[in-house]
Amino acid sequence: MLSKNQIKHVSALRLKKFRGEYGQFIAEGEKLVKDILNSRFRIVEIYASASWITHYRTLVQQKEIPVFETLHGEMERISALTTPSPVLAVVKIPDTGCRIQDPASGLFLALDDIRDPGNLGTIIRIADWFGINTIFCSEQSVELYNPKVIQATMGSIARVSVIYCDLVKTLSRLSETIPVFGTFLGGENLFEQTLPAECIILIGNESKGISPELEHLVTKKLFIPSFGPADMGKAESLNASVATAIICAEFRKGQVNR
Amino acid sequence: MLSKNQIKHVSALRLKKFRGEYGQFIAEGEKLVKDILNSRFRIVEIYASASWITHYRTLVQQKEIPVFETLHGEMERISALTTPSPVLAVVKIPDTGCRIQDPASGLFLALDDIRDPGNLGTIIRIADWFGINTIFCSEQSVELYNPKVIQATMGSIARVSVIYCDLVKTLSRLSETIPVFGTFLGGENLFEQTLPAECIILIGNESKGISPELEHLVTKKLFIPSFGPADMGKAESLNASVATAIICAEFRKGQVNR
Repeated sequence: MLSKNQIKHVSALRLKKFRGEYGQFIAEGEKLVKDILNSRFRIVEIYASASWITHYRTLVQQKEIPVFETLHGEMERISALTTPSPVLAVVKIPDTGCRIQDPASGLFLALDDIRDPGNLGTIIRIADWFGINTIFCSEQSVELYNPKVIQATMGSIARVSVIYCDLVKTLSRLSETIPVFGTFLGGENLFEQTLPAECIILIGNESKGISPELEHLVTKKLFIPSFGPADMGKAESLNASVATAIICAEFRKGQVNR
Repeated sequence: MLSKNQIKHVSALRLKKFRGEYGQFIAEGEKLVKDILNSRFRIVEIYASASWITHYRTLVQQKEIPVFETLHGEMERISALTTPSPVLAVVKIPDTGCRIQDPASGLFLALDDIRDPGNLGTIIRIADWFGINTIFCSEQSVELYNPKVIQATMGSIARVSVIYCDLVKTLSRLSETIPVFGTFLGGENLFEQTLPAECIILIGNESKGISPELEHLVTKKLFIPSFGPADMGKAESLNASVATAIICAEFRKGQVNR
């Protein structure tokens, strides 16, 4: 049985304030915890059902992670999910700070104030699928360790580096050697471009798009064309993660899978 | 000031049971209500701030829609949103039933048990962007009038017809004249196909994919290739709405915008 203090500590990690204070976040679900077990993240402790513990005993013992058997009713109290899963891991927030390894080559994402946790998580999952291992986020973006972000990554958090930084400064420097592509109303048709293998794809805020301070750093303005009779009302925009997916697919499709 | 009965009635519409009983759903936010005002939907009544009413008075009077001035505190009680907007419309659920107009030509989506409200709403928005005006949903899919679906459509609900039906029966019939394309692990590379202008794109459930009963109706199996070193762990799948977006973009890109 969990102690009152354990329940209090883990539940508190739903809130940003306590994640900052303790330097920890929570990850829930079998797939997510398995991916994190095999990643650079350090798991502080695991709360799990008896059957989960039986199944993962060897791996968890190898890694010397304390595991607490947790009843369903207790899991409901510590979980951030509506329907709790059999396992919850408390994970140390790594001290990445703003250290940026200069990208030697490849494709990168830069996010200008993405505010919706589901969008950020989904974008991390898209990056993972398309082999993009570094994402730069403006400092005003939603916090990476928000449980909704972590869940939406479906484990891709374990494989993609997300770096919060002053995006204007960072892109100013990087744009000297790597082109920056961004989407704008009135940009050029994405599907009619020859796209480079090395590029920073800049994604704007859900309602405001790309901010003016970043706009002048954009090498090429792109647009995802809509389709349908011009006289018909239609969607004004695409969701930020949906636009990211279409752009990443277009950049990667010409490239051979290494 | 709203009556107790009004508050009770509108709040009840957050629940599927009462949406079914009253034949009504709620739509919130300036853009969404504006799009619905200009659509085939019939608005029963509107709850709005004084300034919204001033701004839309003429349009609302033309349409003879009862409008109730609503204070912020009252809006908080009737709204399904965490942060209520200045306007909430109670809308009549149209009696579409299972009537299916046989698609004469074009591109269609068929959704096999999409369960997440955000996914369904986002897919409707994607369909709107790419000029797809009919979506077939299996009867086990998430309910269209769930407030989270309605909000995620960002107004596209006003322009896309969503038809719930026995998907096996419907696709059996339609597949006699229109090819059905679906994504499967091990399918053919989406980006290496010549795609037809007339097609049903079948999207599978978030965790189970396309069900066996529908699989044998699929004319061509597609796959969205991932990218990156083969020896690296990577995302196992893409989110259902993200996959839909990439596929729809690929189908539409070769076609001239009419």
